[in-house]
Amino acid sequence: MLNGKKSFRINMRSKKITNVKFPKEYNLLAGRSLISKILLDEVKPTCNALGPNNKLIIAPGLLGGTVSPCSGRLSIGGKSPLTGGVKESNVGGLAATKLSKLNIKTIIIEDKPQEDRWYAIYISTKGVEILEEPEIIGADNYSVSEYLINKYGKKVAIISIGSAGEKQYRSSAIAVTDMEGLPTRHAGRGGLGALMGSKRVKAIVIDDKNTQGTFVDDPKTFKDISKEWIKELVVTKKILTTKGTANLVTPMNKLGCLPTNNFREGRFASADAIDAENLQKIIRERNGKQGIPCHPGCVIRCGKTYNDAEGNYITSGMEYETLVLMGSNCGISNLDTIAKMNRICDELGLDTMEIGVTIGVVMESGIISFGDGEGAIKLLEEIKKGTVLGRLIANGAEITGKALGVTRIPTVKGQSISGYDPRGLKGTGVTYITSPQGADHTAGNALPGRTGYRPETQEVIDVQEAKGQAELSRDLQIMTTVCDLTGLCFFVGTTKANMERIAQLLNAKYGTRLTMDDVIQLGIDCIHFEKEFNEAAGFNRAHDRLPEFFYLEKLPPKDLIFDVPEEEIQKTLRF
Amino acid sequence: MLNGKKSFRINMRSKKITNVKFPKEYNLLAGRSLISKILLDEVKPTCNALGPNNKLIIAPGLLGGTVSPCSGRLSIGGKSPLTGGVKESNVGGLAATKLSKLNIKTIIIEDKPQEDRWYAIYISTKGVEILEEPEIIGADNYSVSEYLINKYGKKVAIISIGSAGEKQYRSSAIAVTDMEGLPTRHAGRGGLGALMGSKRVKAIVIDDKNTQGTFVDDPKTFKDISKEWIKELVVTKKILTTKGTANLVTPMNKLGCLPTNNFREGRFASADAIDAENLQKIIRERNGKQGIPCHPGCVIRCGKTYNDAEGNYITSGMEYETLVLMGSNCGISNLDTIAKMNRICDELGLDTMEIGVTIGVVMESGIISFGDGEGAIKLLEEIKKGTVLGRLIANGAEITGKALGVTRIPTVKGQSISGYDPRGLKGTGVTYITSPQGADHTAGNALPGRTGYRPETQEVIDVQEAKGQAELSRDLQIMTTVCDLTGLCFFVGTTKANMERIAQLLNAKYGTRLTMDDVIQLGIDCIHFEKEFNEAAGFNRAHDRLPEFFYLEKLPPKDLIFDVPEEEIQKTLRF
Repeated sequence: MLNGKKSFRINMRSKKITNVKFPKEYNLLAGRSLISKILLDEVKPTCNALGPNNKLIIAPGLLGGTVSPCSGRLSIGGKSPLTGGVKESNVGGLAATKLSKLNIKTIIIEDKPQEDRWYAIYISTKGVEILEEPEIIGADNYSVSEYLINKYGKKVAIISIGSAGEKQYRSSAIAVTDMEGLPTRHAGRGGLGALMGSKRVKAIVIDDKNTQGTFVDDPKTFKDISKEWIKELVVTKKILTTKGTANLVTPMNKLGCLPTNNFREGRFASADAIDAENLQKIIRERNGKQGIPCHPGCVIRCGKTYNDAEGNYITSGMEYETLVLMGSNCGISNLDTIAKMNRICDELGLDTMEIGVTIGVVMESGIISFGDGEGAIKLLEEIKKGTVLGRLIANGAEITGKALGVTRIPTVKGQSISGYDPRGLKGTGVTYITSPQGADHTAGNALPGRTGYRPETQEVIDVQEAKGQAELSRDLQIMTTVCDLTGLCFFVGTTKANMERIAQLLNAKYGTRLTMDDVIQLGIDCIHFEKEFNEAAGFNRAHDRLPEFFYLEKLPPKDLIFDVPEEEIQKTLRF
Repeated sequence: MLNGKKSFRINMRSKKITNVKFPKEYNLLAGRSLISKILLDEVKPTCNALGPNNKLIIAPGLLGGTVSPCSGRLSIGGKSPLTGGVKESNVGGLAATKLSKLNIKTIIIEDKPQEDRWYAIYISTKGVEILEEPEIIGADNYSVSEYLINKYGKKVAIISIGSAGEKQYRSSAIAVTDMEGLPTRHAGRGGLGALMGSKRVKAIVIDDKNTQGTFVDDPKTFKDISKEWIKELVVTKKILTTKGTANLVTPMNKLGCLPTNNFREGRFASADAIDAENLQKIIRERNGKQGIPCHPGCVIRCGKTYNDAEGNYITSGMEYETLVLMGSNCGISNLDTIAKMNRICDELGLDTMEIGVTIGVVMESGIISFGDGEGAIKLLEEIKKGTVLGRLIANGAEITGKALGVTRIPTVKGQSISGYDPRGLKGTGVTYITSPQGADHTAGNALPGRTGYRPETQEVIDVQEAKGQAELSRDLQIMTTVCDLTGLCFFVGTTKANMERIAQLLNAKYGTRLTMDDVIQLGIDCIHFEKEFNEAAGFNRAHDRLPEFFYLEKLPPKDLIFDVPEEEIQKTLRF
């Protein structure tokens, strides 16, 4: 059953659509690992990321469309317009499940139109069609999904870009509709919205009408394992269901690694204004929702909706990363301000993390001050207007910082660091440094209490001690990759026990006889593909490091510096 | 005599000045090769170029201060704020000769002040002093040199930065005064003005009062060789004396490699408006000067001064690169407009090449149109005012292009290509690709008629055929490096005969017994140092290439693409 799925190649120059037959070695590749292998095999690593030779690749995971909990994540990838390296961005919403139900392994969008015209793609049981939808060109993500759902029915999933992606801004995200049909889920990182824009594809409609359930080789075993796992997740992940990812604000602040004022401090005096308690309180007062699943089969349900004072919907979330990078990192403590910033990014289709960090960099430059929420919203309005400063910001922190003469630019491989100061969460720092994806907590987040899968990494270590962080980050990166290639949300837990469970689920679904080690090897293989691509794209050991200030400036209040030895990182991560 | 020179280390944090004693292997290192070796030995390649760990290094060449013709060029270097790699920028003017007369091998400026204060450095027979000159902070280069010459006497040489360098803009140049005391000579490339600004050194005054002539081991032989060479140069380089570097406009236009409208075309309809004939005509009409030497002992004398219609001095030059990159590449054909642009860059201290290319990129983005000279001047005014667009432009073509969403950005390793479209001058294209300095014609310019020093490169090849370009570029790069480490202007001719002559001059000066091969090895060694530094700084084979459009877009009118095979380039340049 491993080779029974369909794959499509869509050439946007010729408008030809072809079926792809992958060689046998592709059988166990899916999601992130499939993207990495296709990039390595088909895309010239030095190509212009926004030119005709890059490809936009969409792929659900190996467990997509099944009853396994939280298995409906979608991988979208290509050569990153932001980093210039490999990129997989992982997103919830309806798309992965519907693609899996359509028995689709991947969609590869190639080349670009020579004519000045925009397109949409329609995927159904009949195959793939290229359409024109002139009414949505220039529209924001909310209008796009509303229009297309009106036209194609309530049950379709929409993948779309806003005007930021159309303009090929390098912080552009790709939006995916959630279970309410709202474009609230985002493949945020790496500027993939710009890549989709470069192909002149405004939206993809996925219609799974008339599909049957996904084939499973041994349904009973599969269901049993899933049921048991669901039962466990409902209990162990309750804090995510009730508080959402915002639950991290208070502990990270206590730990002293909450990015504050462009990573100048690790503790934010007004942290309680942006923490989970305050967020929950406001959501309740304004009849917002909590405990929302982001995709069918999600039992962790960390989603929320945030309304304005009149009870009108503003945005989903907000997630920890947004709260912190648009909040404390900009010295902003007003949730309504952050919600407005979040909403503008959702409409335009921009990565809230990259933009939050970029606004922090603009504040560092002195153009506006830390804490100036109104100023921050005005900056986002500048993106809408397309002013020079707006264009600059929409292209991310590194370009903005360099252009404005800021030397403290918190990026790795051109992508902004996320919501954890690496001096105060050192294993995550190692992940920022070494992940082929650029700075990215979702590549292996070494939060307190995390352990690896190898005997020597089973012990819980102090997140602020240098010792053992390289090993821990390595194990977490590998296990996270396993989640990214199976379509599992990594919130299920990147643990040894879950790797074992994933092996059993894959065996039940595909009739394979994989061991835990085999599953882990799938993750390792994927990272190898990515490193090979990156090296050919121009990355070497020199790029595996944090910006200099993390090594030189002590982070208050604990006076931490990043001190995991470079040699240890290089040795450990050369697996 | 090889080890008799003095070197100083100036620490801008502690204000300590120390004498440097280099090991014996440094004896034959000078100018560019000394800079590269110091960078390799002392500067962490991954450091922030504008941070405390970078160093600004100033070094005359091995023949500096002698009667050898055209030997008074100065090398200034460090890790480039523009490219992030090794950088030596080569400049004429008085400074090198005076440093040589002071018997100084190099000045290394280290670390940076912790206090918010600016400094100047005074170098004389008494050694090195750190001064404060508050009156010149914020001033343009012309005011700085006027003030300092008034204060320290007519015979001092001034090295200075304008406000662009103070603001650490990554296209900032370092100015050196000419024989009239005007800051018309620029170490333009690589943003070294920003590096000097990061050290908070506004100016360096070099006073060679009370020095004797430079020691020469065998003065008679040295003088005889020099005399013969001078006689030869006066005849063979006459076109440079009369027409200046502008003499290239017409042949490059005919060849179809004159950058036009951001490298969209290779021939400019109004080329005759910016060619040497028109330049000479205007200079004559307005009582400008021609045939000016840029440093003592220069017998080629390619300098000019350009006056306005009232006969008032505007700027020196203008050089081919400025005429073409601010002219045809921006669709601008008015010499007065280009002169004004040039003057603003000289005042602020900006690289006219990088800025010319950047304005072309801004035109490509649609903010102003090709040919809009007034618009171009306004853009430069924005740099003065410090607007966001101004800051962007002052940081160079790559950042500007990325921020404005331009995909046709003519840079290699982050530095703009100079005044020759690589599709129409393929050996120079190979130099752009492979030089550790980033795109830079002065690293080895394969103009028609050039040959190398090896038997197989002695034949003149067609500059628009792929064949043989890699070998030719390699030989030219090596011989040019020999000029850069001896302090010779490469206009003397990067030829086999001259390599032989340089060996004889070095032997006469230092009592050595170097062969031509030894001299060539000095050049090769230097490039090795640079490649080693660059690799550790994050460059690999992927960075050795032109922007994609040079391979994909045919250059009118000859429909040329860049087609020197990558494998051949890699093989040949891995010497």
